[in-house]
Amino acid sequence: MELGVCYYPEQWPTAWWADDAKRMREMGIRWVRIAEFAWSVIEPAPGRLEWAWLDRAVEALHAEGLKVVMGTPTATPPKWLVDAHPEILAVDAHGALRGFGSRRHYCFSSPVYREQSARIVRLMAERYGHHDAVAAWQTDNEYGCHDTVLSYSPAAREAFRRWLAGRYATIEALNRAWGTVFWSQCYSGFETIDPPVGTVTEANPAHRLDYRRFASDEVVAYNRMQVEIIRAHSPGRPVAHNYMGFFTEFDHHAVSRDLDIASWDSYPIGFTQDRAGLSDAEKRRWMRTGHPDIPAFHHDLYRGMCAGRWWVMEQQPGPVNWAPWNPAPEDGMVRMWTWQAFAHGAEVVSYFRWRQVRFAQEQMHAGLNRPDHALDQGGVEATQVGEELRRLGLSVELAGQRVAPRVALLFDYDSHWIGQIQPQGADYSVLHECFRAYSALRGLGLDVDVLPSGAPLAGYALIVLPAQLHVSEALAAALSASGAQVVVGARSGSKTARLSIAKPLPPGRLAEPLGLTVLRVESLPPGVTETAGFDGGELHQQRWRERLACEHADIEARYTDGSAAVARRGRMRYLAGSPDIAGWSTVLARAAADAGLPMQHLDDGLRVSRIGGLAIACNFSDQALEWSPAEPATALLGDRRLAPRGVSIWQLTNH
Amino acid sequence: MELGVCYYPEQWPTAWWADDAKRMREMGIRWVRIAEFAWSVIEPAPGRLEWAWLDRAVEALHAEGLKVVMGTPTATPPKWLVDAHPEILAVDAHGALRGFGSRRHYCFSSPVYREQSARIVRLMAERYGHHDAVAAWQTDNEYGCHDTVLSYSPAAREAFRRWLAGRYATIEALNRAWGTVFWSQCYSGFETIDPPVGTVTEANPAHRLDYRRFASDEVVAYNRMQVEIIRAHSPGRPVAHNYMGFFTEFDHHAVSRDLDIASWDSYPIGFTQDRAGLSDAEKRRWMRTGHPDIPAFHHDLYRGMCAGRWWVMEQQPGPVNWAPWNPAPEDGMVRMWTWQAFAHGAEVVSYFRWRQVRFAQEQMHAGLNRPDHALDQGGVEATQVGEELRRLGLSVELAGQRVAPRVALLFDYDSHWIGQIQPQGADYSVLHECFRAYSALRGLGLDVDVLPSGAPLAGYALIVLPAQLHVSEALAAALSASGAQVVVGARSGSKTARLSIAKPLPPGRLAEPLGLTVLRVESLPPGVTETAGFDGGELHQQRWRERLACEHADIEARYTDGSAAVARRGRMRYLAGSPDIAGWSTVLARAAADAGLPMQHLDDGLRVSRIGGLAIACNFSDQALEWSPAEPATALLGDRRLAPRGVSIWQLTNH
Amino acid sequence: MELGVCYYPEQWPTAWWADDAKRMREMGIRWVRIAEFAWSVIEPAPGRLEWAWLDRAVEALHAEGLKVVMGTPTATPPKWLVDAHPEILAVDAHGALRGFGSRRHYCFSSPVYREQSARIVRLMAERYGHHDAVAAWQTDNEYGCHDTVLSYSPAAREAFRRWLAGRYATIEALNRAWGTVFWSQCYSGFETIDPPVGTVTEANPAHRLDYRRFASDEVVAYNRMQVEIIRAHSPGRPVAHNYMGFFTEFDHHAVSRDLDIASWDSYPIGFTQDRAGLSDAEKRRWMRTGHPDIPAFHHDLYRGMCAGRWWVMEQQPGPVNWAPWNPAPEDGMVRMWTWQAFAHGAEVVSYFRWRQVRFAQEQMHAGLNRPDHALDQGGVEATQVGEELRRLGLSVELAGQRVAPRVALLFDYDSHWIGQIQPQGADYSVLHECFRAYSALRGLGLDVDVLPSGAPLAGYALIVLPAQLHVSEALAAALSASGAQVVVGARSGSKTARLSIAKPLPPGRLAEPLGLTVLRVESLPPGVTETAGFDGGELHQQRWRERLACEHADIEARYTDGSAAVARRGRMRYLAGSPDIAGWSTVLARAAADAGLPMQHLDDGLRVSRIGGLAIACNFSDQALEWSPAEPATALLGDRRLAPRGVSIWQLTNH
Repeated sequence: MELGVCYYPEQWPTAWWADDAKRMREMGIRWVRIAEFAWSVIEPAPGRLEWAWLDRAVEALHAEGLKVVMGTPTATPPKWLVDAHPEILAVDAHGALRGFGSRRHYCFSSPVYREQSARIVRLMAERYGHHDAVAAWQTDNEYGCHDTVLSYSPAAREAFRRWLAGRYATIEALNRAWGTVFWSQCYSGFETIDPPVGTVTEANPAHRLDYRRFASDEVVAYNRMQVEIIRAHSPGRPVAHNYMGFFTEFDHHAVSRDLDIASWDSYPIGFTQDRAGLSDAEKRRWMRTGHPDIPAFHHDLYRGMCAGRWWVMEQQPGPVNWAPWNPAPEDGMVRMWTWQAFAHGAEVVSYFRWRQVRFAQEQMHAGLNRPDHALDQGGVEATQVGEELRRLGLSVELAGQRVAPRVALLFDYDSHWIGQIQPQGADYSVLHECFRAYSALRGLGLDVDVLPSGAPLAGYALIVLPAQLHVSEALAAALSASGAQVVVGARSGSKTARLSIAKPLPPGRLAEPLGLTVLRVESLPPGVTETAGFDGGELHQQRWRERLACEHADIEARYTDGSAAVARRGRMRYLAGSPDIAGWSTVLARAAADAGLPMQHLDDGLRVSRIGGLAIACNFSDQALEWSPAEPATALLGDRRLAPRGVSIWQLTNH
Repeated sequence: MELGVCYYPEQWPTAWWADDAKRMREMGIRWVRIAEFAWSVIEPAPGRLEWAWLDRAVEALHAEGLKVVMGTPTATPPKWLVDAHPEILAVDAHGALRGFGSRRHYCFSSPVYREQSARIVRLMAERYGHHDAVAAWQTDNEYGCHDTVLSYSPAAREAFRRWLAGRYATIEALNRAWGTVFWSQCYSGFETIDPPVGTVTEANPAHRLDYRRFASDEVVAYNRMQVEIIRAHSPGRPVAHNYMGFFTEFDHHAVSRDLDIASWDSYPIGFTQDRAGLSDAEKRRWMRTGHPDIPAFHHDLYRGMCAGRWWVMEQQPGPVNWAPWNPAPEDGMVRMWTWQAFAHGAEVVSYFRWRQVRFAQEQMHAGLNRPDHALDQGGVEATQVGEELRRLGLSVELAGQRVAPRVALLFDYDSHWIGQIQPQGADYSVLHECFRAYSALRGLGLDVDVLPSGAPLAGYALIVLPAQLHVSEALAAALSASGAQVVVGARSGSKTARLSIAKPLPPGRLAEPLGLTVLRVESLPPGVTETAGFDGGELHQQRWRERLACEHADIEARYTDGSAAVARRGRMRYLAGSPDIAGWSTVLARAAADAGLPMQHLDDGLRVSRIGGLAIACNFSDQALEWSPAEPATALLGDRRLAPRGVSIWQLTNH
Repeated sequence: MELGVCYYPEQWPTAWWADDAKRMREMGIRWVRIAEFAWSVIEPAPGRLEWAWLDRAVEALHAEGLKVVMGTPTATPPKWLVDAHPEILAVDAHGALRGFGSRRHYCFSSPVYREQSARIVRLMAERYGHHDAVAAWQTDNEYGCHDTVLSYSPAAREAFRRWLAGRYATIEALNRAWGTVFWSQCYSGFETIDPPVGTVTEANPAHRLDYRRFASDEVVAYNRMQVEIIRAHSPGRPVAHNYMGFFTEFDHHAVSRDLDIASWDSYPIGFTQDRAGLSDAEKRRWMRTGHPDIPAFHHDLYRGMCAGRWWVMEQQPGPVNWAPWNPAPEDGMVRMWTWQAFAHGAEVVSYFRWRQVRFAQEQMHAGLNRPDHALDQGGVEATQVGEELRRLGLSVELAGQRVAPRVALLFDYDSHWIGQIQPQGADYSVLHECFRAYSALRGLGLDVDVLPSGAPLAGYALIVLPAQLHVSEALAAALSASGAQVVVGARSGSKTARLSIAKPLPPGRLAEPLGLTVLRVESLPPGVTETAGFDGGELHQQRWRERLACEHADIEARYTDGSAAVARRGRMRYLAGSPDIAGWSTVLARAAADAGLPMQHLDDGLRVSRIGGLAIACNFSDQALEWSPAEPATALLGDRRLAPRGVSIWQLTNH
């Protein structure tokens, strides 16, 4: 459990650097990320390398014993490179070049850009790879930000054709897999296939899915190129990438296979306004705290990569600039978010950024310090966390000692893409289905692992598939082999790997274990709720409803017209609709009880996580709340009464 | 009254075909439409024709006595043709090519595509034109689907210039007709005129209207080319095209002049969600039945073409995939829609599609059979209709014996285009005005003919012009000659044929017969309702209001400020606003009473049509309702109590 | 106080002209604007000048003693010019040419278009510059209409580079000013800089702001070119341009520096529906009168240019055609708008247009006369104003005798651009902040000058800066030197001239005089209201909230959490949020009281202005209201009881 910060020495007078470093150390900061947007400062003209300033900056940090995370600057290719090679630019869905002037304007498929990236990464790795201060690396910055994974450049088209040839071998196999007999879409050769863009109405879904997979693979390959160069020149330093929240344009698991640490950038308030699919009422309710489960969901998601090693690389330190509206965090939130991340197993929480900068695009983005260098509220709270960490003596090793959750929730990027390509209802989202189920589990006081469907499932007592649209043979087998209670959300198993309707009919490979068939599905317009009785209460389903034939399943809940809303066979349940969080909670509580899991029904502003013998409780609400562990425990920080935005930490006696 | 189905043998194993055909016949199906998207299967490479599979498919159907509707496959030009001739692609309003990968990517004005279309149609007609099984043809598929009538290609520009030269002869005439003296728009020659697209603000309305008319004429010419080839090679077989619902991009009357049968594709639930201009509350109310008058309006519209011969070529068989939300039909709706179509005079109702396909864009579109070939709910209901038809002994000839409705409602595509080009209020729609008036008439139990304004009007007792923006001399004369009650909606007669303000002032040619002048018009923002007393009740007008000088007209209803809301001169009435359905109902009931028409005020879920001595009642609501004919009659199917989604058929004694 | 009208002789038969002129004169009209869209009629082919018709038209007007405002026809370059020089077309943000077919399709930066414009202006000025009838000129028409100031043509790019070089001299200075060290944006030379468009996410804000300023300067230069030609050839005739309402794409003050008269086009009902940022409820409330303060705000804004000489060049005469919805004015509004303009100091109110035209884009735009030449309601009311002017004997000189308002409200276009580039909350608008504060002042019965921040501020008792995002040294000094009460809205002073965060921290140069620092800002999502107690009442703030450190300021109002909502130091107040009109009214009433200004709290439908010894009251509401001056006065027109849409004019005794 260590603190870090993101720092841009190139944006400040050299004379400030030593003092900055000193104050960082005093604040309890151990890690400093630098250089990830500095290409045009490092190399202001082709081949003219200016290392002196960066050398000095690294030394200044080193002098205070700070550890550097060196970022490769490839998210922002300089103007001279764009002018010399405009073909490195990405191309949007309308055929327009995505121009210079902000960031992430490159196309992952450009061979020229791969070569130039390799060159600058190699130069940096050669220069700093063995420096004592350089203790970790970050590749690029926020792959996919601003919708930059999908590019329709000529280079991407050529690469896609090669990718298809590699995957299908013969054009006949592709025609069969895509079902090109439909609408006269048959292809005579891989060289005749274009990206699925600019069509009169939707393009073939298998074609679209393959383009999504191809584009994700391009990110993987690009990142691997960087990692390999860094590893060759900077042995022993872990390599991370900083992911974002609710980004789904590439398979983060696949990229993480080449990394040592999965890190992410946690902006709970921006995500609450912008990307979580929340209602306007929820956006207002959580506007100054963020929805409590948004950071938690991502913590648990990214912990499922890189063998559990993960960081928060950028932690929101105050108001930001990029959401449609940008409320300020309540006092105490920066501290609470930090503890929440540690509670979920973060090794490091690193704030973005050290000091608010007066100029350019992010001038309205707060830092730990104000532009005039006075400590801002975020800095005050970071200092407090630094002191608390010191006082409690919590080490970074604790991050690895998380008590293994007994609940697994499955989320596949590929499944989400299928849902995006064939939503069937305009507001359907696999990601939001998963988030609602996750939030329900957390409200029951349960710790959760968010896992890809290929992860080992042994040892879990409860496995939840909120919207696993494709179920592989391996997953079906793993579920059968598991002794866990399994809750399967609507649409799960409904599609093949090639985005066709599954055989047998949905839920496909889960039809036999669940003992049921989905006869009919429908998406429901906004404002329509289908109600079912369950456990004496009501289950409200929106957006989606199915009609089942329950050949071998018991019906646990029925819609008002009598058809099944929840069906069960043995230890597996199926939901024939898309419940709200309360509905998920009802069903999951029953399944968790069947699994013998201890639960606590928490206020929707209260969240608890367990880590290495500790239980950490966070009160996101504006009311004081009471909470203490059910098991014997001693309060290390705070007590049973949690003030609004309060944190308490308990040492569990029998751990 | 016969049943049909749409079938894609190329999408299924050859081994299934014989059984498919056998089951179709057993279900009571007589017609099978095939081949309309099969170009790349028929001709996988330029000039390489593969007829064998299609020969076999036709034979398989023929073997069971099924009649084939052969579709020309021109809606989906193959990739090899697009690659060889990219100039066949349509161009969108932003200058982008509308690319290969879905369907309808061609430009109607492309000479190359016309030539290629003629070639493939000729080849098909030569091969199958005299086949015993081939009993009808369909040209192309759903002209205009996905907004594909308007193209801005170089070929379209050239054709438009020729079209203008043909229409105006001299550039001076065009300048005069368009009023190009306004905003310095004068042209020096036809070759300087571009399509009305990409302008800074709206282009000249007459210019825009001419482009709409030109584009419509291109569809007419393209279709005629196909029809002439088919007629030459397949004598005696009627030729149809399958229109869609609420499509207005071309003049369907003009296309129909070259056809033998007007057919259309009836998807009541999708249209309810997507195109009828209904409120969110109405969308929810009718989400699983479709609005009752959506199919009826189109039945009556398309019956007004091809001398009354019309089919439903594609009948929704279950949930579909293409609307923003896609609820599933209530049980009974597929049967009810079929009977409703027969009740309006359909010769054939053909379901889309035989079997749900597992792959490609429409994999979520239900069929009569599930993907695993088990009968789906739509198949169950189609089978029921087949049995009922057999039992009642209703023949296809009955379709032609519709008792001539006494009510005519006028709808011109051209008038709708005028309304789109000069809406004056953002939510104004000629089509929706007509739909509301139509729905009101149907709620009064009246049978209606929906006619173009050029149709003969003799014999009608009530003629309704909900929004006839241009009134021709012939129409004005026909209305004068008619002894019918006439109800004229706001804006009628307000424009010349060249989209100028009419002389005399609006209602133009109707000013004298109505005895009034429209002094002022206004569009009303959403949420504004102008109320007028009428017949002791209230008339609520939204969207539009006018102020009249009633020189020779009596004022039947006044707005609260005293100005006229409904004015009348003799047997003609004028509405100075846009009423809701209830408002239309109030005014039309008065006019129908004046016309001596017998009415029945029906529940908004109940609809009745009369055909060949039968009265057929359909209950779209979720309540049981009572209904029986006012005249002596015997129930052939069902009785006076109609269960929810129930149908009853009565033989009228004195027919 | 004179009346005028806009007239298009080229659109009507020559035979009508004499009668038109006669009727104009009889109606009391003195001024007639002509020719501003007539290029293709004047010069139907390159170099072929057809003056005869225009000569005759001028003579016809002259014969009735009417004074002509001659418009230069450059807003509508003819087709032959576009075909010969397509490079004169503007280019939109997606790189598309803005095509011929409507108006304003030219790029201000095109050297070819400047040359062609100079040529046609010179030809017109040479021909009519000394004509007795020609008493004034108008350049072009509504610069900026349809978003036409920003163009991304190659010519604009080149001109921008030159503009930057002129402004920054060295590329290092530009890099520093823009903060290009952020996100690797450093430039190596001016020739490498592109317009800030097509970037992946937002471009550098200083880059964007400079592009806005450059584009505004291009308008200034283009207009100056025309003015210089006109002055050279038509000495003694004032030159005007007709601005629009709520247009902010260029700096109207800068353009006005080259003009003699600032005129504008007042369409209160269209602006109410389309551009004022009003709620749906407000749009409905004022749908047939327009919001009372929309014309007033612009009157007072444009009076702040050209040393107070201003006209309404186009006055809405009835319903228009261009807003999303176009309600008709209540009877009496055309008269009231005219009197309201005179009350604010207009020299001339000129109606648009003489007669509604039957054809082309504006056929649904009313005129003083109907298309059949009968007088329309607008004409009736214009006639009434003409008679009233005659009867009261009010001369045009009165316009210059406005009693100097004691209240100044500052509005800078530049500040608005900063707010658009860095809104921080999606609904933040400097213009709308200013409008709300203005409306509050008017509701207190105060006369207001709307001024740019560089205007002299001596003599004002109350100065309001609703959202002065950049505060110059000169402004700060002027405020200090002034003895006025000053009310400063949130965000004021927060930015430097280069769009960075101010030093000292916001409110920057106002931090010391206000005695406070803005510690934190936040934008508030829709539906969130932050309440503060003030003067026993409540202050409701939406959209924006700040947290202050009040080092030397007193807190006059606190949010419910105790932090400052209104702070005061001496005669300066600061608002830490964005109040609604009622909130502005509360704070401004207190400041006005402190300034010793007499106030009257007016009904929100009642507005009063003072001009040259007169007080003119207008009742926009649909209720009769009572009002009379607080000081001794005699009613010249109407009396204390104002009927709905009524006007009363009082002679103040002690003036």
